[in-house]
Amino acid sequence: MSTTEDVIGVARRARVAGRELALANRATKDAALQAMAAALLEREAEVLGANADDVQRAEHGGVPTNIIDRLRLTPDRIAGMAQGLRDVAGLPDPVGEVVRGGVLANGLELRQVRVPFGVVGMIYEARPNVTADAAGICLKSGNAVLLRGSSSARSSNVAIVDVLRDAVSAGLPADVVQLVPGDTHESVKALMRARGHVDVLIPRGGAGLIRSVVEESTVPVIETGVGNCHVYVDAAADLDRALAIVLNSKTHRTSVCNAAESLLVHETVAEAFLPRVVAALQEAGVTVHGDESFTAYDGVLPATDDDWATEYLSLDIAARVVPDLDTALDHIRRWSSQHSDAIVTEDQAAARRFVAEVDSAAVLVNASTRFTDGSEFGFGAEIGISTQKLHARGPMGLPEMTSTKYVVVGDGHVR
Amino acid sequence: MSTTEDVIGVARRARVAGRELALANRATKDAALQAMAAALLEREAEVLGANADDVQRAEHGGVPTNIIDRLRLTPDRIAGMAQGLRDVAGLPDPVGEVVRGGVLANGLELRQVRVPFGVVGMIYEARPNVTADAAGICLKSGNAVLLRGSSSARSSNVAIVDVLRDAVSAGLPADVVQLVPGDTHESVKALMRARGHVDVLIPRGGAGLIRSVVEESTVPVIETGVGNCHVYVDAAADLDRALAIVLNSKTHRTSVCNAAESLLVHETVAEAFLPRVVAALQEAGVTVHGDESFTAYDGVLPATDDDWATEYLSLDIAARVVPDLDTALDHIRRWSSQHSDAIVTEDQAAARRFVAEVDSAAVLVNASTRFTDGSEFGFGAEIGISTQKLHARGPMGLPEMTSTKYVVVGDGHVR
Repeated sequence: MSTTEDVIGVARRARVAGRELALANRATKDAALQAMAAALLEREAEVLGANADDVQRAEHGGVPTNIIDRLRLTPDRIAGMAQGLRDVAGLPDPVGEVVRGGVLANGLELRQVRVPFGVVGMIYEARPNVTADAAGICLKSGNAVLLRGSSSARSSNVAIVDVLRDAVSAGLPADVVQLVPGDTHESVKALMRARGHVDVLIPRGGAGLIRSVVEESTVPVIETGVGNCHVYVDAAADLDRALAIVLNSKTHRTSVCNAAESLLVHETVAEAFLPRVVAALQEAGVTVHGDESFTAYDGVLPATDDDWATEYLSLDIAARVVPDLDTALDHIRRWSSQHSDAIVTEDQAAARRFVAEVDSAAVLVNASTRFTDGSEFGFGAEIGISTQKLHARGPMGLPEMTSTKYVVVGDGHVR
Repeated sequence: MSTTEDVIGVARRARVAGRELALANRATKDAALQAMAAALLEREAEVLGANADDVQRAEHGGVPTNIIDRLRLTPDRIAGMAQGLRDVAGLPDPVGEVVRGGVLANGLELRQVRVPFGVVGMIYEARPNVTADAAGICLKSGNAVLLRGSSSARSSNVAIVDVLRDAVSAGLPADVVQLVPGDTHESVKALMRARGHVDVLIPRGGAGLIRSVVEESTVPVIETGVGNCHVYVDAAADLDRALAIVLNSKTHRTSVCNAAESLLVHETVAEAFLPRVVAALQEAGVTVHGDESFTAYDGVLPATDDDWATEYLSLDIAARVVPDLDTALDHIRRWSSQHSDAIVTEDQAAARRFVAEVDSAAVLVNASTRFTDGSEFGFGAEIGISTQKLHARGPMGLPEMTSTKYVVVGDGHVR
């Protein structure tokens, strides 16, 4: 059988299993999630063993340490995966929620109700914990999931999915959680072309992965997570707050999409702010790539257009002094990935303009870009952060993993 | 200049104009809509003259009468277009609406706010009234629009867009309403490939047009309007209601996507219902394409799989007797285009199962499929009926023409 037929095969099984899952009530789904969590802890050794194989293969293959770090599972990480599943069990069921409803003038009852998408495809990199997270969120939102993790995490994913399927099958069809067969690019391609069999595809990972899925897929895609985020320190900024926000946005965790990558400073405050922010960033280990105003400080490297464009995901920041708010807005318009951009200001008019004119998933006033996060927003679980405008924008929780249908009830109504 | 460069050129102008439009308040937008309506009436002769050219060309080209009927404008139709624009002016502004909001545990204010998409592309067939409708809905929702109507309506569309742009330009940039240059397929293709320049593409028209856009476009697409709709007459149906609903769903207007194309009848009521429904349909001029139970009646043609699959959009209906609700659900699962499907029943359990298991944009109980409509649902304006699951499903009003952003306001918050 070809890869395409294999992939269509699992998608068909997902469709059938998904139909039963879509009708399952919350209690059934929560029981499955609890069983999944318990099974992961119980069969920890099995999962760790499989993971050790992946790690060994990666080490032999000369994979960079930071990638191996993401790949590696520990008892703590498995406990985290189990807790994540329990957390999802604790969240309200989005399926069946009435989004709006009422009675029309002619007496027809109209309700718009949340329903699962059906079959969701996840394409992601070498983070085996995503396998459990995605399975849990999809299950709770009533969607069968097809998981296609990185081939370098193949053994871990096989083991995790095996554990999860066994646990699920007590109350629901095991095929609501499936691994996509094959670990070549062919199987990713087949998934992207499975229009009609797969309802939504969610790529999670680096910019390259996401771009290729967006361009090649005929299945509708939700783009996630590329973050070239800006902090703009306005003329009317409280500079202590500004310093704290820049440092937190940049250094709290560098490898994530909501970390700041660029700093813009209004020229009015440059003289007061630049020495402080450069020193503080450098003390935190950050390399500053700056314009002429910044390169006047020791250790600051000159910035090029590449720096404005780059999502470093490292202890680097691009930095520029701007003559006014308009120039800051222009800069953000040109370079932002429209994920999260922040202004620091005490000036209400500047804040209002920034909020209105910056066209990003999240616009923050006097707050760190790191707050753009499903858990910080109180969503409880997050499948990713959408940077597209259709369907969902920003952190995606359980409701974002659903579609809706209209239910119309009459007593013989005709037009 | 190539067609692609031309199309990217208008898209860039739309982007710039759209930025100003996105910030315009409701009063400015409503004034523009009123001016557009007034200008259409004032310059009616110009539009009718251009339309006469299109109609003449179509007649010489041997275009079918029903297509020419859609193409032809009359003073009444122009008055209807003007009234449509005024109706949109009367609707609430979706932009800025707070979808949800509150204060997080740490004191951060969080609001999810509706914002325009930016640049919307419309691809549609030879209905010049869509030009004004789409321009009005996009303008009110803060989106710049690129209109690509059928080349057979080119002269009409040029005239209408000319009128609308003149009217808009009193208070807003004229480039918020633009015609896509070129009338070959190349210009449609360029529009479909203008990812990053065009935010959303909405094809309106027949199944072939929509399929080709969905398959070829790299710009996110909202699929609209293919309707293979079913009416299922259950064992527990009130047969008078069933008769009225079948007739209304099929014959009230045959050329629209929410017209019924298939009838399923539970075998328990077949003997009582079939003679009545066949006679009534035939009296209304409908050709019935039925299974063996139906072909027992005079004039009923035998149905093939093609009939179950077809969106007739004509005085034809496919008809089948089913042994039970499960078979009806299977039939709908297999053949429905997931637009609108109705059950006629007095049995609460059957209605609940039908509503839960039929995965369509609208599921109706004891009501005609013809009710799936933005205006019937009270939305006031409709850009189309989405049959996809991402972003919008069912009739799309002004709110469905927006995205959202998160606005996060703190006083120096860091993690």
